[in-house]
Amino acid sequence: MSAMEVERMSKAAQLRRMLGPEVVRVAGAHDALSALVAEETGFDAVWASSLAISAARGLPDMSLLTMTDYLQAASHINEVCATPVIADCDTGFGDVANVAYMVQRYEAAGIAAVCIEDKVFPKRNSFVEAEQLLEDADTFAHKVEVAKRTQRTEEFMVIARTEAAIAGLGIAEALRRANRYADAGADAILMHSKSPLPDEVLAFLSGWGGRAPVVVVPTTYYRWHVKDAQTAGVSMVIYANQGLRACVRSMRRAWNEVLSTGSSAPIEGRIAPMAEIFRLQRVDEWLSLER
Amino acid sequence: MSAMEVERMSKAAQLRRMLGPEVVRVAGAHDALSALVAEETGFDAVWASSLAISAARGLPDMSLLTMTDYLQAASHINEVCATPVIADCDTGFGDVANVAYMVQRYEAAGIAAVCIEDKVFPKRNSFVEAEQLLEDADTFAHKVEVAKRTQRTEEFMVIARTEAAIAGLGIAEALRRANRYADAGADAILMHSKSPLPDEVLAFLSGWGGRAPVVVVPTTYYRWHVKDAQTAGVSMVIYANQGLRACVRSMRRAWNEVLSTGSSAPIEGRIAPMAEIFRLQRVDEWLSLER
Amino acid sequence: MSAMEVERMSKAAQLRRMLGPEVVRVAGAHDALSALVAEETGFDAVWASSLAISAARGLPDMSLLTMTDYLQAASHINEVCATPVIADCDTGFGDVANVAYMVQRYEAAGIAAVCIEDKVFPKRNSFVEAEQLLEDADTFAHKVEVAKRTQRTEEFMVIARTEAAIAGLGIAEALRRANRYADAGADAILMHSKSPLPDEVLAFLSGWGGRAPVVVVPTTYYRWHVKDAQTAGVSMVIYANQGLRACVRSMRRAWNEVLSTGSSAPIEGRIAPMAEIFRLQRVDEWLSLER
Amino acid sequence: MSAMEVERMSKAAQLRRMLGPEVVRVAGAHDALSALVAEETGFDAVWASSLAISAARGLPDMSLLTMTDYLQAASHINEVCATPVIADCDTGFGDVANVAYMVQRYEAAGIAAVCIEDKVFPKRNSFVEAEQLLEDADTFAHKVEVAKRTQRTEEFMVIARTEAAIAGLGIAEALRRANRYADAGADAILMHSKSPLPDEVLAFLSGWGGRAPVVVVPTTYYRWHVKDAQTAGVSMVIYANQGLRACVRSMRRAWNEVLSTGSSAPIEGRIAPMAEIFRLQRVDEWLSLER
Repeated sequence: MSAMEVERMSKAAQLRRMLGPEVVRVAGAHDALSALVAEETGFDAVWASSLAISAARGLPDMSLLTMTDYLQAASHINEVCATPVIADCDTGFGDVANVAYMVQRYEAAGIAAVCIEDKVFPKRNSFVEAEQLLEDADTFAHKVEVAKRTQRTEEFMVIARTEAAIAGLGIAEALRRANRYADAGADAILMHSKSPLPDEVLAFLSGWGGRAPVVVVPTTYYRWHVKDAQTAGVSMVIYANQGLRACVRSMRRAWNEVLSTGSSAPIEGRIAPMAEIFRLQRVDEWLSLER
Repeated sequence: MSAMEVERMSKAAQLRRMLGPEVVRVAGAHDALSALVAEETGFDAVWASSLAISAARGLPDMSLLTMTDYLQAASHINEVCATPVIADCDTGFGDVANVAYMVQRYEAAGIAAVCIEDKVFPKRNSFVEAEQLLEDADTFAHKVEVAKRTQRTEEFMVIARTEAAIAGLGIAEALRRANRYADAGADAILMHSKSPLPDEVLAFLSGWGGRAPVVVVPTTYYRWHVKDAQTAGVSMVIYANQGLRACVRSMRRAWNEVLSTGSSAPIEGRIAPMAEIFRLQRVDEWLSLER
Repeated sequence: MSAMEVERMSKAAQLRRMLGPEVVRVAGAHDALSALVAEETGFDAVWASSLAISAARGLPDMSLLTMTDYLQAASHINEVCATPVIADCDTGFGDVANVAYMVQRYEAAGIAAVCIEDKVFPKRNSFVEAEQLLEDADTFAHKVEVAKRTQRTEEFMVIARTEAAIAGLGIAEALRRANRYADAGADAILMHSKSPLPDEVLAFLSGWGGRAPVVVVPTTYYRWHVKDAQTAGVSMVIYANQGLRACVRSMRRAWNEVLSTGSSAPIEGRIAPMAEIFRLQRVDEWLSLER
Repeated sequence: MSAMEVERMSKAAQLRRMLGPEVVRVAGAHDALSALVAEETGFDAVWASSLAISAARGLPDMSLLTMTDYLQAASHINEVCATPVIADCDTGFGDVANVAYMVQRYEAAGIAAVCIEDKVFPKRNSFVEAEQLLEDADTFAHKVEVAKRTQRTEEFMVIARTEAAIAGLGIAEALRRANRYADAGADAILMHSKSPLPDEVLAFLSGWGGRAPVVVVPTTYYRWHVKDAQTAGVSMVIYANQGLRACVRSMRRAWNEVLSTGSSAPIEGRIAPMAEIFRLQRVDEWLSLER
């Protein structure tokens, strides 16, 4: 298939096509610019991360921002990126009716895939020290089923994320749930873990048998090499928040230095030049329209 | 005046109060998080920059984003920051009626000050290689007048920005315009320059005579020390885009390293830890409500 | 107190001031225009109705629209109306943290009062034939408490709405809950009923003893005269949806006639002239700025 | 072609297909609900009217609302309507770059057609007593050209509207401009007139020669029968504001009666019952998901 043919496919179709023997590498983004930088660097797809998007708003990742906010953020990313966008949709923002509405809106916005997790609305970020309430597995499977029934195109993907390990219920429960969600039609399973090692994910993979692609988010077990993940049977790796965390550190250092030295001269060599910003904004392309 | 008394003042009143012998240091922000980091670092106020906000959307700074978009971005910043927000409002988004509407909306949103510039809508970023069309000085002065007439509180500030030097019309024209805008009621003058040295700003200041506070944006003449600016008569220095530029560079390096090394392990020590993100999001404060 | 002094008060203060011996009459609105018409007709305040706002979007009133959507709609109303706006905030859009966030945002937007109800998120409209799940009374009282603790000005009002009668739990339970919410700091109680007669409301009022103002919504018991409500002890009557329902009927008739007769000539005398639209839009006022 | 095949076509393709010997009848809408009522009544398409949308916001139709606002309103309509939506896009919201951005966004949102007019931004409503500044014809033709070049699908339509008659420049100028815009690729011409008779439109049609479909908006010449318009060569008739005007009149009467009689009893028979609102909201369909 030629590059042009791929480009003409929907982004959902492109994402499906990526799911092969090679692991798909996905960068978390908090806005369109962070997504563009990740895309330029060579990532295959973008994760519109709830943690990152709520952090960019200065608010916690606990369902204070709404579907309206998250959809807007994901759409802004999708509008300027060529790569497919996978939207972190928390619990689906409520009940099955909310899930159906969500699928309608995200699919219409051109988002390639949504990911919903088996926690109770309002949810809390999985890495926060707080109780994690799991949704009943059948109730969540019903959400997955309704999501799949609602989508209009065949290619749109629904990723089911189990938080069983995050909630401390163990790998057997994660497997039971993942199978239940695959039965309900989930196109992939995100097996979430906050272990400092990939042990939980490995245990899951050995029991899974490859029924559906497995997605992982190595935030805590960050030493796991992507090739090892691939060998173990992982189809997609999401680096969900490293871009945002790079921003925070670099801004803090830059601003500290500006204040302490009295000018931005010392940092000019360590920050992107204006020309790079203009290039990312495609200023030339837009200005050329005016001629 | 005690800290508590200052806190009870409107942010516009706080901003006015800052305008004294000490130069006010302002950091450009593209979203709430970047503003929070600048605030924590010690900046006095935040500049909701059109360049930065449009760049965060992956779009050029040429009036493609609308007042609705910029107001939303400025409001998101203002909602979580304690320091005053100064909104970069381009040309006022159209005519005098647009300016009046803008003042209504920005003031109601709690923004401390708006800054409008004497270019024609749709404008282009001042640093872009493109023709810069200046608005007729009387037409622009009318905008300033209407803005001042529209505001409901006394404290709200309207900063008039002259692009005369950017457009290559020289310092005499900049002074003529600045005086015209001060006559019309402008609370401060932003004298914009893209010279690599502060020469244009210094020429302006020596002819200005301190009629109204002068604001500068040392993007190109970044070697100018803030104390020298203060001595020369500058009241406010805006570092408009360095935070954004730090982000772009640091994200690119982080993502490059993740892709080339196969994991995020090598960068973990150079990016903010998750705990710092949670602190900026005030997770503990929000979770404590639930008890 | 002079009219000018009243105008200088916050809208929340104005609303509190209205709560006296005379019943406050409130019109439900689905957008700014419907609110302006109600205001011109003489209503004291506007109810930013969830039913009406979701209907205007062509969506059911079952928590598909989000706080972001409802706040935007209420703000658009508030921006152009002189009268106070009371926002229908459903369950508070989730948990106590959502309630706190909601109070922050609605108060900052200049909304005079919010009303939250003791149902479980996602809620269903009270008049729909569907199960109505009540929130635990203590959990809901905690929401009220957090709402009151979160508000920054003294005047902002939190109205607690009990759906006990809607859920078929009887008046004793409604009273028990209303007292619990008044203990938690509720500024008024909305006693909701879908009886065709005011019997439930009357039973409530006779057991209530006037601890806090009582608000009613006579959608089904529409024959109840406002003076009888006042005599019975009601402080505020909300006509929540009649404006919207008038629109639907009149548009259907107008469009039917245009299609069947082949022109709009037959209806011109029965629809507002363009001049009335322009007047409601304050076209002259806005155009006068340009001179 | 079967009904199912038509349904699978894009809405733009559906709209193109309608443009045949039979005139296409289009109803102006200010929100999704008003569009749904028009659709149910039998209109072929919906006009997302700037006048109506700004009136619903309580603001004049003079470019105070932005592309962001108008696109949101058009999208809300499009999300719930089966019929194609034609968006009133004023001047294209600025320059050619704004037009290109607009086409990107409206097409991506599933809008079938955009209509841009040859006035200068910020524009004023065509029926308002105010000067009407026309855009230079070549400049506007360039906008049309860029719009056509920007669209990604073949079906998307760009309607060019000439305000030559509104600005008092006569029919010859209207024809000259319409031809210029058709040369530039316009898919249809909206010939606007505020004459109380269809005389200007008839003069235009007789000189036009059917190069491209002609669209009319009989707001002032409302006695013109749709069949006469069809015979004269009109392809599409837009009843742009009658729904909104019906709403205003009916709400005013309803609210007046509620206030003067002390209850809504007298109007209950003249407003839509709650059941009709629920039906328009498709409550049953949404609730059935939960089972």
